[in-house]
Amino acid sequence: MSGMKIAPSILSADFANLQKDVEITAQAGAEYLHIDIMDGHFVPNLSFGEPILKALRPHSKQIFDCHLMVDNPEDYIAILAEAGADVIGVHYEATPHIYRVLQQIKETGCKAEVVINPGTPVTVLTDLLEVVDAVLIMTVNPGFGGQKFLPGMLSKIKELNRIKKDRKLGFEIEVDGGINDKTIIECQQAGATVAVAGSFVFNSANPSATIQLLHEVTGD
Amino acid sequence: MSGMKIAPSILSADFANLQKDVEITAQAGAEYLHIDIMDGHFVPNLSFGEPILKALRPHSKQIFDCHLMVDNPEDYIAILAEAGADVIGVHYEATPHIYRVLQQIKETGCKAEVVINPGTPVTVLTDLLEVVDAVLIMTVNPGFGGQKFLPGMLSKIKELNRIKKDRKLGFEIEVDGGINDKTIIECQQAGATVAVAGSFVFNSANPSATIQLLHEVTGD
Amino acid sequence: MSGMKIAPSILSADFANLQKDVEITAQAGAEYLHIDIMDGHFVPNLSFGEPILKALRPHSKQIFDCHLMVDNPEDYIAILAEAGADVIGVHYEATPHIYRVLQQIKETGCKAEVVINPGTPVTVLTDLLEVVDAVLIMTVNPGFGGQKFLPGMLSKIKELNRIKKDRKLGFEIEVDGGINDKTIIECQQAGATVAVAGSFVFNSANPSATIQLLHEVTGD
Amino acid sequence: MSGMKIAPSILSADFANLQKDVEITAQAGAEYLHIDIMDGHFVPNLSFGEPILKALRPHSKQIFDCHLMVDNPEDYIAILAEAGADVIGVHYEATPHIYRVLQQIKETGCKAEVVINPGTPVTVLTDLLEVVDAVLIMTVNPGFGGQKFLPGMLSKIKELNRIKKDRKLGFEIEVDGGINDKTIIECQQAGATVAVAGSFVFNSANPSATIQLLHEVTGD
Amino acid sequence: MSGMKIAPSILSADFANLQKDVEITAQAGAEYLHIDIMDGHFVPNLSFGEPILKALRPHSKQIFDCHLMVDNPEDYIAILAEAGADVIGVHYEATPHIYRVLQQIKETGCKAEVVINPGTPVTVLTDLLEVVDAVLIMTVNPGFGGQKFLPGMLSKIKELNRIKKDRKLGFEIEVDGGINDKTIIECQQAGATVAVAGSFVFNSANPSATIQLLHEVTGD
Amino acid sequence: MSGMKIAPSILSADFANLQKDVEITAQAGAEYLHIDIMDGHFVPNLSFGEPILKALRPHSKQIFDCHLMVDNPEDYIAILAEAGADVIGVHYEATPHIYRVLQQIKETGCKAEVVINPGTPVTVLTDLLEVVDAVLIMTVNPGFGGQKFLPGMLSKIKELNRIKKDRKLGFEIEVDGGINDKTIIECQQAGATVAVAGSFVFNSANPSATIQLLHEVTGD
Repeated sequence: MSGMKIAPSILSADFANLQKDVEITAQAGAEYLHIDIMDGHFVPNLSFGEPILKALRPHSKQIFDCHLMVDNPEDYIAILAEAGADVIGVHYEATPHIYRVLQQIKETGCKAEVVINPGTPVTVLTDLLEVVDAVLIMTVNPGFGGQKFLPGMLSKIKELNRIKKDRKLGFEIEVDGGINDKTIIECQQAGATVAVAGSFVFNSANPSATIQLLHEVTGD
Repeated sequence: MSGMKIAPSILSADFANLQKDVEITAQAGAEYLHIDIMDGHFVPNLSFGEPILKALRPHSKQIFDCHLMVDNPEDYIAILAEAGADVIGVHYEATPHIYRVLQQIKETGCKAEVVINPGTPVTVLTDLLEVVDAVLIMTVNPGFGGQKFLPGMLSKIKELNRIKKDRKLGFEIEVDGGINDKTIIECQQAGATVAVAGSFVFNSANPSATIQLLHEVTGD
Repeated sequence: MSGMKIAPSILSADFANLQKDVEITAQAGAEYLHIDIMDGHFVPNLSFGEPILKALRPHSKQIFDCHLMVDNPEDYIAILAEAGADVIGVHYEATPHIYRVLQQIKETGCKAEVVINPGTPVTVLTDLLEVVDAVLIMTVNPGFGGQKFLPGMLSKIKELNRIKKDRKLGFEIEVDGGINDKTIIECQQAGATVAVAGSFVFNSANPSATIQLLHEVTGD
Repeated sequence: MSGMKIAPSILSADFANLQKDVEITAQAGAEYLHIDIMDGHFVPNLSFGEPILKALRPHSKQIFDCHLMVDNPEDYIAILAEAGADVIGVHYEATPHIYRVLQQIKETGCKAEVVINPGTPVTVLTDLLEVVDAVLIMTVNPGFGGQKFLPGMLSKIKELNRIKKDRKLGFEIEVDGGINDKTIIECQQAGATVAVAGSFVFNSANPSATIQLLHEVTGD
Repeated sequence: MSGMKIAPSILSADFANLQKDVEITAQAGAEYLHIDIMDGHFVPNLSFGEPILKALRPHSKQIFDCHLMVDNPEDYIAILAEAGADVIGVHYEATPHIYRVLQQIKETGCKAEVVINPGTPVTVLTDLLEVVDAVLIMTVNPGFGGQKFLPGMLSKIKELNRIKKDRKLGFEIEVDGGINDKTIIECQQAGATVAVAGSFVFNSANPSATIQLLHEVTGD
Repeated sequence: MSGMKIAPSILSADFANLQKDVEITAQAGAEYLHIDIMDGHFVPNLSFGEPILKALRPHSKQIFDCHLMVDNPEDYIAILAEAGADVIGVHYEATPHIYRVLQQIKETGCKAEVVINPGTPVTVLTDLLEVVDAVLIMTVNPGFGGQKFLPGMLSKIKELNRIKKDRKLGFEIEVDGGINDKTIIECQQAGATVAVAGSFVFNSANPSATIQLLHEVTGD
């Protein structure tokens, strides 16, 4: 079991000085930067879109991992890819054409990720797992920062990991929501390979040390 | 004819270092900060929402002037007011209940502004002018930075100004789109009192000097 | 100037015993019964639909005046006509096809009414006035009971009445919102011929006497 | 196998005199009152909303069981809870965020129920069963009264009941649609514990006796 | 007063043999071909889209005049221009961004036309008339063939023509709906310069002769 | 294993001369005619609707197989049935009320077909298989002609065929997308009984011969 990749979410960073916060995460060794794009329709909050991604791209070589919490996700793929996205995640629940949108992501050269909400069962992914580069299992409800980890999601991670092994697939299993130095271990043991962390990192006294802590407890 | 108030639009600022750009505008004497909230539905682009406003509030005492380019604008009023908005502008075209939304803004203590698109005639505002604190006349189509000023809009500004004087009202007349040191003068002569400037300010070599220039040419 | 027609709104009646409240209004001489149909989409509240209308029809010979505060109003016309509506009112703001919907109402044999929100100017009605049997001018924002009369609406009533006389038309001018024994007189003087009254009637100690009061003060 | 709980649906009651009909059901021993809230969007009919619930609350101590057949169900939870709901049921098909809405219901102190349409398989509920207090299996298509029971739904009830026992869970299994003194027995044998009955009760000569019949045949 | 341009609408042609019907209209001297694109959303019927336009383009040199009766008209402009449209007409009622869509049409090299429904007053066009190449005044409600001409629309044509002359503009005034050899004369006298004719042409015994008749009665 | 039924899709035919192309397919022995109805909303393209179906009906006795790629499919059933449809297919992803829409189709006398997108698993069909006459498994993403067959869909066909045999059901298994003389054999071996073919037929030098080829390779 190798170490978890850490994806600090800029949703909890200082929007007046994002460059600084992003550089802290990069220097602390966070492999990913998680970018939560919310449109106020798929989820009630409107966070930000492509302009922020584009502004941060010159300041970091991390994997830019865009999590689309929007209606009509197909309208965002080309523009995010061009602005510097590396991974683009789309909710299964956000489109009747999930297969097409995932193909559309891959055609841009980005990695394609499918995201499922807490109430969505792993079985809906059956015909997508050969197509995707990553699956993001929401461990809280999307759209709000600072929520508590839902322990019921661990069985979903395990079930997905079992299918992954049965079908000899290599996609990442990412978790997002309520991640801290305890829950990250549970997620790792269940099979997760990438963990998003927002308020646990940026609301801590020392974000850099917190990222390092997350790496340490997951055996890196 | 007193000087124009200048409202630099952060849409053209550096999203990696907003505090710095905002402070430049404040020090240069810009009375307003224009905050373009786009949801990817009312207009095709998704810019940003409340988190950015909230992050900037501690760094400026300017008038925070939020221009809502969103569907269901009524869902944003309370949250923007709480995050520090001073003026909230809502498109006439974005809701069948414009009167109610303007009242809703005033109940929060913010100034209420109605916005009209280039194709929308001034006559639709008849029953709103006693209610509003400001009217924003779009001088380009909303949703995109860097467009060219539409000279046909000058007659709308004049018509609105004539009604304002006939009815002895005191609302601000704001213009947004394609504003530079030439068009700002035309707008001022037509009756505008507040001018938004985005790329002309932030894409210039010296944003501070550019803001001062806009003040100078409008007689401040 | 003949007396006003009074239209008590059942939105303020006792939904556990509507027959009783409706019979009180009929016996008190209210010519109309105002039926506020809200779908929770065009306005935030969901009040009720056709089942209530149908249940009340056998208990009253009043003019059943259905005010549609719904999206897709065209879907409701046939079913309301069949359930016993006499007048059906549709918001100008609720459909791009207002002319068609008004024709559709007339084809059912019902009277066709167009409704305008407080922020909508009378000028939008230009091409509809020969077609309609009634115009409802909202004197509060639709969708909520118990609001305060907006005095700015009096000039709209006057303007509409002036056009009605110029074009020698016979449509009713109805007002809805904040009507009491004071505001009803102002509306009548401005040209209104039908007045909706909700909480003023049903929240009063004696609804029957209140209806009679409204008739008295308007000269009946 | 203990007796079934009976939930008369007021959709088939007399809307001119609901208090009377509700009191009949309470006196006849019906434990629940089923309240069918339809918005004319999720289903084609608009029935009624919160005002009816609020008006009935003082007249009954039954469990008020609100079945939301609406788009955007999250907008109704707080208002229904405050108006006196005991159980709130939300369709799996009505929101991408079913887990969040069920949590939202529980936070108000109400019981949370998930509802599935005839075409929706039980497998989609996998990650919700630990969260809910009840599952409502539609035995007809929602939105219309007086339909015939779909016998194919019995296997869904059995499957759900089997999972419930395997996972040692305690949620109620409710059925709605086409329930009479024959189909209620089949549902009970398949595992249902609560039965909604509308037209079978209120269109019968003696609603009180009919409710008692339903209790008798299910062994109460 | 020069002759009217005639625009036969293929909505009334034989969809199994469009080439033949189109060639008849061209040989009969019809300057335009009117192409009614309906999406089943903006209007209840779904007629056809770009594939039909593209298939007909090689068989006619007429002016292809596309009338968009669709939601989100901005999504159709580029594809129709590429498929061979010459004029693209967009409903004022179909978008909050009519100015932008008209500009978008002109950028493709097509002529830009704004269309207004029977209930929409001419005054809403105030700020568009300098921008458009044509205005289409619906003389029936859009979305259905074979309707009767609305005589009330003549005054709108006259009013528009008066403004056109006052402002010395050169846009075409087109009429659509219920056009026959009588109504076309009335429209021409009111100021129309292009007339759409559907069922009057294609349901006649001799479509070619009917087109010629329309030219004759309008003085060609 | 009997021969496959062939369903040429008119989406790839010549829309200027559909009668001719349809007659070719009938004479070549194609049992079905596949009619792709797209509304520009459920899928990005707008193809055509009922008028085309109605125009073709007199020219062919083939099974008219309408594939609805539209939002609100329930609004199209009656009109298509009346215009001559034999089979109507509705996407599982297009409505929360799939069971009701399938019943609605059967009530018109047409055959009811459920369609699933590439990303939708077969397990969602569990409660529909006793109801339907056919299942259409998309072998490309719907809405665009000329795409490449997705080989991953073969396992879905096999899984569905296994369930069909287990439950001793008789529905057709139809495939649509990327069908040629190679992929049709793979689909047949997996259990498909009807194959849609569009560009492979109509873009070939000899459509008639191509249809015959498809019949030959599938053992007819």
